[in-house]
Amino acid sequence: MLGARVKPRLLAMLLCMTAVVGFVLTLYAPSPLLAADVQKVRQWRQGKNQQPRYSPTWDSLDKRPLPAWYDEAKFGIFMHWGVFSVPSFGSEWFWWDWKGAKNPDFIDFMKRNYRPGFSYADFAPMFTAEWYNPLQWAEILQASGAKYVVLTSKHHEGFTNWPSKYSWNWNSMDTGPHRDLVGELRDAIRNQTDLHFGLYYSLFEWFHPLYLKDKQNKWTTQEYSKEVGLAELYELVNTYHPEVVWSDGDWEAPYTYWNSTDFLAWLYNDSPVKDTVVTNDRWGSGMACHHGGYYTCADRYNPGVLQKHKWENCMTIDKKSWGFRREATLADYLDMDDLVKILAETVSCGGNLLMNIGPTHDGRIVPIFEERLRNMGQWLKVNGDAIYATKPWRAQNDTMTPDVWYTSKGDNVYAIVLDWPTTGQLTLGAPRSSSTTKVTMLGWPTPLKWAAGSGGGIQIQMPAAAPSQLPCQWAWVLQMQGVM
Amino acid sequence: MLGARVKPRLLAMLLCMTAVVGFVLTLYAPSPLLAADVQKVRQWRQGKNQQPRYSPTWDSLDKRPLPAWYDEAKFGIFMHWGVFSVPSFGSEWFWWDWKGAKNPDFIDFMKRNYRPGFSYADFAPMFTAEWYNPLQWAEILQASGAKYVVLTSKHHEGFTNWPSKYSWNWNSMDTGPHRDLVGELRDAIRNQTDLHFGLYYSLFEWFHPLYLKDKQNKWTTQEYSKEVGLAELYELVNTYHPEVVWSDGDWEAPYTYWNSTDFLAWLYNDSPVKDTVVTNDRWGSGMACHHGGYYTCADRYNPGVLQKHKWENCMTIDKKSWGFRREATLADYLDMDDLVKILAETVSCGGNLLMNIGPTHDGRIVPIFEERLRNMGQWLKVNGDAIYATKPWRAQNDTMTPDVWYTSKGDNVYAIVLDWPTTGQLTLGAPRSSSTTKVTMLGWPTPLKWAAGSGGGIQIQMPAAAPSQLPCQWAWVLQMQGVM
Amino acid sequence: MLGARVKPRLLAMLLCMTAVVGFVLTLYAPSPLLAADVQKVRQWRQGKNQQPRYSPTWDSLDKRPLPAWYDEAKFGIFMHWGVFSVPSFGSEWFWWDWKGAKNPDFIDFMKRNYRPGFSYADFAPMFTAEWYNPLQWAEILQASGAKYVVLTSKHHEGFTNWPSKYSWNWNSMDTGPHRDLVGELRDAIRNQTDLHFGLYYSLFEWFHPLYLKDKQNKWTTQEYSKEVGLAELYELVNTYHPEVVWSDGDWEAPYTYWNSTDFLAWLYNDSPVKDTVVTNDRWGSGMACHHGGYYTCADRYNPGVLQKHKWENCMTIDKKSWGFRREATLADYLDMDDLVKILAETVSCGGNLLMNIGPTHDGRIVPIFEERLRNMGQWLKVNGDAIYATKPWRAQNDTMTPDVWYTSKGDNVYAIVLDWPTTGQLTLGAPRSSSTTKVTMLGWPTPLKWAAGSGGGIQIQMPAAAPSQLPCQWAWVLQMQGVM
Amino acid sequence: MLGARVKPRLLAMLLCMTAVVGFVLTLYAPSPLLAADVQKVRQWRQGKNQQPRYSPTWDSLDKRPLPAWYDEAKFGIFMHWGVFSVPSFGSEWFWWDWKGAKNPDFIDFMKRNYRPGFSYADFAPMFTAEWYNPLQWAEILQASGAKYVVLTSKHHEGFTNWPSKYSWNWNSMDTGPHRDLVGELRDAIRNQTDLHFGLYYSLFEWFHPLYLKDKQNKWTTQEYSKEVGLAELYELVNTYHPEVVWSDGDWEAPYTYWNSTDFLAWLYNDSPVKDTVVTNDRWGSGMACHHGGYYTCADRYNPGVLQKHKWENCMTIDKKSWGFRREATLADYLDMDDLVKILAETVSCGGNLLMNIGPTHDGRIVPIFEERLRNMGQWLKVNGDAIYATKPWRAQNDTMTPDVWYTSKGDNVYAIVLDWPTTGQLTLGAPRSSSTTKVTMLGWPTPLKWAAGSGGGIQIQMPAAAPSQLPCQWAWVLQMQGVM
Repeated sequence: MLGARVKPRLLAMLLCMTAVVGFVLTLYAPSPLLAADVQKVRQWRQGKNQQPRYSPTWDSLDKRPLPAWYDEAKFGIFMHWGVFSVPSFGSEWFWWDWKGAKNPDFIDFMKRNYRPGFSYADFAPMFTAEWYNPLQWAEILQASGAKYVVLTSKHHEGFTNWPSKYSWNWNSMDTGPHRDLVGELRDAIRNQTDLHFGLYYSLFEWFHPLYLKDKQNKWTTQEYSKEVGLAELYELVNTYHPEVVWSDGDWEAPYTYWNSTDFLAWLYNDSPVKDTVVTNDRWGSGMACHHGGYYTCADRYNPGVLQKHKWENCMTIDKKSWGFRREATLADYLDMDDLVKILAETVSCGGNLLMNIGPTHDGRIVPIFEERLRNMGQWLKVNGDAIYATKPWRAQNDTMTPDVWYTSKGDNVYAIVLDWPTTGQLTLGAPRSSSTTKVTMLGWPTPLKWAAGSGGGIQIQMPAAAPSQLPCQWAWVLQMQGVM
Repeated sequence: MLGARVKPRLLAMLLCMTAVVGFVLTLYAPSPLLAADVQKVRQWRQGKNQQPRYSPTWDSLDKRPLPAWYDEAKFGIFMHWGVFSVPSFGSEWFWWDWKGAKNPDFIDFMKRNYRPGFSYADFAPMFTAEWYNPLQWAEILQASGAKYVVLTSKHHEGFTNWPSKYSWNWNSMDTGPHRDLVGELRDAIRNQTDLHFGLYYSLFEWFHPLYLKDKQNKWTTQEYSKEVGLAELYELVNTYHPEVVWSDGDWEAPYTYWNSTDFLAWLYNDSPVKDTVVTNDRWGSGMACHHGGYYTCADRYNPGVLQKHKWENCMTIDKKSWGFRREATLADYLDMDDLVKILAETVSCGGNLLMNIGPTHDGRIVPIFEERLRNMGQWLKVNGDAIYATKPWRAQNDTMTPDVWYTSKGDNVYAIVLDWPTTGQLTLGAPRSSSTTKVTMLGWPTPLKWAAGSGGGIQIQMPAAAPSQLPCQWAWVLQMQGVM
Repeated sequence: MLGARVKPRLLAMLLCMTAVVGFVLTLYAPSPLLAADVQKVRQWRQGKNQQPRYSPTWDSLDKRPLPAWYDEAKFGIFMHWGVFSVPSFGSEWFWWDWKGAKNPDFIDFMKRNYRPGFSYADFAPMFTAEWYNPLQWAEILQASGAKYVVLTSKHHEGFTNWPSKYSWNWNSMDTGPHRDLVGELRDAIRNQTDLHFGLYYSLFEWFHPLYLKDKQNKWTTQEYSKEVGLAELYELVNTYHPEVVWSDGDWEAPYTYWNSTDFLAWLYNDSPVKDTVVTNDRWGSGMACHHGGYYTCADRYNPGVLQKHKWENCMTIDKKSWGFRREATLADYLDMDDLVKILAETVSCGGNLLMNIGPTHDGRIVPIFEERLRNMGQWLKVNGDAIYATKPWRAQNDTMTPDVWYTSKGDNVYAIVLDWPTTGQLTLGAPRSSSTTKVTMLGWPTPLKWAAGSGGGIQIQMPAAAPSQLPCQWAWVLQMQGVM
Repeated sequence: MLGARVKPRLLAMLLCMTAVVGFVLTLYAPSPLLAADVQKVRQWRQGKNQQPRYSPTWDSLDKRPLPAWYDEAKFGIFMHWGVFSVPSFGSEWFWWDWKGAKNPDFIDFMKRNYRPGFSYADFAPMFTAEWYNPLQWAEILQASGAKYVVLTSKHHEGFTNWPSKYSWNWNSMDTGPHRDLVGELRDAIRNQTDLHFGLYYSLFEWFHPLYLKDKQNKWTTQEYSKEVGLAELYELVNTYHPEVVWSDGDWEAPYTYWNSTDFLAWLYNDSPVKDTVVTNDRWGSGMACHHGGYYTCADRYNPGVLQKHKWENCMTIDKKSWGFRREATLADYLDMDDLVKILAETVSCGGNLLMNIGPTHDGRIVPIFEERLRNMGQWLKVNGDAIYATKPWRAQNDTMTPDVWYTSKGDNVYAIVLDWPTTGQLTLGAPRSSSTTKVTMLGWPTPLKWAAGSGGGIQIQMPAAAPSQLPCQWAWVLQMQGVM
């Protein structure tokens, strides 16, 4: 930052200034920032400085390799939980729809069911979470076959699911559950499962008055982003050591308003999770799909073709909402055929799938979600070889038969077959057989018969199985060795 | 009732007495009874008295033939809904477990979640039913393939789901939903579906002070049964015209305390539903399985062998509760394999299946129940021929292959096959083939190959179907013609 | 009802009929009545029948002498408490104003403050009474100088402040306070004070469906009056032994509908309070001011002239309501000048004063009421001789000086002087002095100077007292001996 | 802070440093401070700088003359209102007693009346204020004779009674009343009365996590005081223009932590109320009774002797609480004799009286408070000449007769006589009569007879008035002219 040829006197002066500035900062600067800085300097000195350090620029930050666990995990569960789980109507954007967009459906819902003047904050004491049993959640999450979980620590409503010092009386300890929702889940996940624990955090808040003030000032002030946003984010990382920091709500302001590069540099260099943490790409307007850790681009991003950068498809089982909705009917939930298909598409194209469920205000994962999760786990128990730790193959889906998606691991090529051919004969155009080719179906005891296809592909005889003998429902995986 | 040769003077005297008694009764008698009597007399006079009338004795009442629609229906949906749906914990016996049995789990649940002194009656205003949409319920019920529905009009808690004059301020109009739950469902069912509409009614109430008084008096007084129980029952029938009167809560007192035979005589002779109504057998201690309409004997009655008297297997998808329980997990719900098996067993042995779900306090049928119901409907859409309007066959289940259950209709014999044979060859011991024997699978386009079995039975070649070609999941029906 | 010349045969017939009717009645009649009748007969036989017994006719009942304690007491406190104390708006007629009269003020109040569909019954769980301390109430009541208290056991809303068997889930034990409000006050009053304990009871209920049915039947049926009204009244007397039965809500129906004369005959002949109980005159339409115990005629009855029949002026400190109203301002409360004046007027004319206060939903007697009551007690402590156990004098108020009211006891004539004469000279026209005349002021140490008035009256020199020396505020009592 | 012998080079260096620090501060400093500073500078330049400006030192600030209105006002009303008005038990320190001091009475209160886990924040939605009618309050306050009102804008609980940007979701607009309580009262007071409008503000908050953090850091950090405390205080003054800033909650931290002198310098120099605002002395530990505007020293400060510095006696009608308490009985309220006595003592010794009442959670001034206030107004209507705009006399109370207190205005000396002499003769030792001496009683039409006392004082004949002729109750004022 400074030219090389500074004279000694100037140097002395600068050192002195730094000391004074430092002293002044102890008085004025929001302490989390300061604490972080101090810690940074300390670590700089103590450490042998063996690892490369990242500067707070995208150039530098984007060079960080993604910790390996993430790409191998392939499948995570997303959970949206907050005060919005109390009205449990519309979606987790309830407050905005009601008071921001003034959507008549939401205004009417409130008029019909609550006394006049009832405000969103009045919902908080009803966020009771009395059934919240993190061990039970952990068991279900483990059973789903997921390798990581991402919980909303704070959504756009600003209510923190942990006792944040920067959200007094608007957090899960001071009102509502009177519990540290984040901390309890972290403990259960870390003690009872092999999942990685991640946290979603919304940078902005729809209605925080300081945010609205900064916005009105066209981001020339940072009262909210420093006193609330960053303060909470540092507190969150330092307290819970999340291995995913899933940022959101960034889009209205530039990343400089959010101090995103500073935060990420700290996260990668000096935070307690610097070696294992992964982040996404929502760090300021225009950043998504361009900078950060893995790319999420847009909600439900599922490009269908191979991507150069590691990406994640975050989607939700309830087609219309991330938070739990009471009015959701069966038709609103994706079924297992849908979900397995999306998993196959996503992994084949190099993505991870982050599948969302919404717990209820009283802390339950309702049975329909539990059923989907356990079914996913049941499918993955048989077919996990085709998912976990795989790499995309040279083709993503088949050239001749639709709804066949490929992955690979070492020698093995996996064809995920969504539709069982009614003829019993499966024709694949993409793989080329060889003399050493061997085809099996995951979960089926004997190798399958195959023949070279006329057009260079391969033709496979599906097994004649009684329904109860099928290794799984919804999709079947052919493992091919010796193909190219 | 009177001998023929009464003298004129005596007749005059009796007429006079009748007039006086009538006048006195207008002052003292509970009016529903009176209204019923008056109506009875009127009908006696108006009608040509063509139909036989039933006397209030079991001998007479038991002679009434069951209206035909019931046996043909085979499959109904039971719904338990009430104030117990608010705590939604344990079961619909919540109040009893808490205050009657003093079960520590329930005492603890209340201590943890409610203020001291909170009483069961205090739950009533929380029974909001704001999502209760009878048209939506009707659509789901229709889609389930059921042919009748039975809703709890009042459970043992005494809360009436209709605005009863005899349960003031303890009914769904005066508090809680502020709606006529019974009436609204009736309208939706009758206007939108072809289902028959039935009502469950609990004769006794755990904590009604007049009931407890009568009980203490060893049933020598009838304050409760007349002023509350029968008054409500007459009101219910006269107002809603239910085609099933599903009595319960009878077991502590003799049928004479409940005036059951009088009520049934009125119901069969003079009520607005006299021609179509069916009743069950819970009309007093010792009556179940012996008197009344169809027999329910005990909850989840499923004898596994043919019964002489028409019967009903009432059971519930949640293994542990009839009312909705928030703590129920996926493992607590019977799955489709279980449910189809129970349906097959029940119908084969001459029973009807009444499958229960519990709506929530806010009026929803949760998706897990909706899924089960729609899956039942999907199965019945293919296989309904083997269920509706069938008769038991000479054998109920197969002699050689387990988990095959039979029904019949006219020439057709139906084998409901719960497990697809892994060999693809199904051996049935019960049917005997003939030259005209023809075997098809419901939902499968072409006839199946068969051969006479070595031991007199029949051996059938199951079709080689890809999973997606199977006409259904869970169980398959073979329709056989020309077998004996 | 029957002509005199009935023939023997007809007599036989009638006897027979009576037997039949009797038998029918044992089946149909509400048991409390029956039980009472049976008890009556039993006592008739067992007792030596020494006391005269009253028949259930007004002729007979009106002959009963009023127990002496009542006339001597002169001053009682009325308390209106119920579910209406929860909204605490308008008056204790809240429900009627809202749902019966559809008064826009009440409709608006509910719209502004409660969710749509909120019903009156939903107020009950908010009737918490957590501050209800009957010992504290008893101390305040005692300090007021009152000699009896009358609490509403049930107002027109039907909610019973005791755990009545005939008002299940609509009473103070099953919901709301979860306490026996009547019983607890009775115990405190009887154990801690010398007051007599009385109970107000509303015969009718605005919205009881059985009452409305009887009303629609033009009182030809008695479902409500027997199964609810009388049942509760007997239960109340038998359980709490009230010494005042303050009936109300009688006006819509004839006393025959209420079976009032039967009840009173039982009350006077056989009830546990037969020797001490007093009743009022509200026992059926047209009865008030004509039959029963003491007369109340109308609310706030204060005729200003001597009455022949013992009467009571029931009035309320809050000019606009008997129940507690939150919106009441200071101007709505009668002040001590008003209250002492009303007491003087009432007692002078032979009445008792029953002064009402309304406790809050959480069980408090608010300080403004406490202040009025303690001030009354302070006044009565000095001037009680002019009130308790007095008789009306030959003149009620003075002929020359306004606002002077007379009472007497033995030799003493008391002049209650509401306005201290500004001249210091009080001229009384009614009393005639004699040689033995002596005049004192209650609470003043020395006799007053007096002189015979020019017009036959008497002229009295008021004492020259500093403000702090005055024996009391608000009104002063001159005790005169030797006047005629 | 710096040694005396700084060399020019060092000076240059420091100037440079200052610039850098300034720049850094624009990034880090909480904006209100900055905004204030900028505004200050601007005004400095624009204004002709005619008025003396105050520096942020006690020396300078203490020199500011108190705006005249305040000393002339003499009598103000204090109002404590907040979330503590919901439990309304114990006092406004409820939260502290419960969770800080862990007082068993409060723990027990919560256990008995609320569900487990109920937190203080959960009270907020119950702070309904539905009866809050600022016009009605204004009318009562005006009628009390007070000349200013001081409302708690925020008490130690931190809940702001205005929609503060710095207390999101913990203020009266976001939850509870959903109204700007401060703003509405200000409008009513300013539009409908001649009272001055003041605001109480608690610097500290018992449980604010940032405050607790600063405290733990031994006040070396100022996260709370800058981001919350001062931010709110500036917002409050700029928005509502209070004429009294009644600071409190200062005692734990030094004034430097609170930046009190900076704030006061701004308040006096540049704020919108710089010409009229008065402040008290609670600006940091050790400041009370030593620095600031008028002195409050301690709650209920009433020294009984003349003070050199203008002071205020803040006290409360409920002896045990400033917030409304439901359990307060009549004995807990000071009566009019007490209150008039305290007023006389306070004003005689140079103080102002700030008399407190506590509104209810639903926005009412209960009648007992209204009665006290209107009685005060009634007394002041007659005797206001002896209070408003008076100066202490040379003697504060009389040398011979107890309970006589003096004030003066111009020629007039006022003796406030708390006890009317029973002899009718009042002997005053302090005043010396002259030939021009004239004695009247305020509210009495004719002059009083007097004579020089034997010991140099004066002897006065009290008027012989009937009780109804007394100009007032509770205390009487003699106005003396021509005395020394």
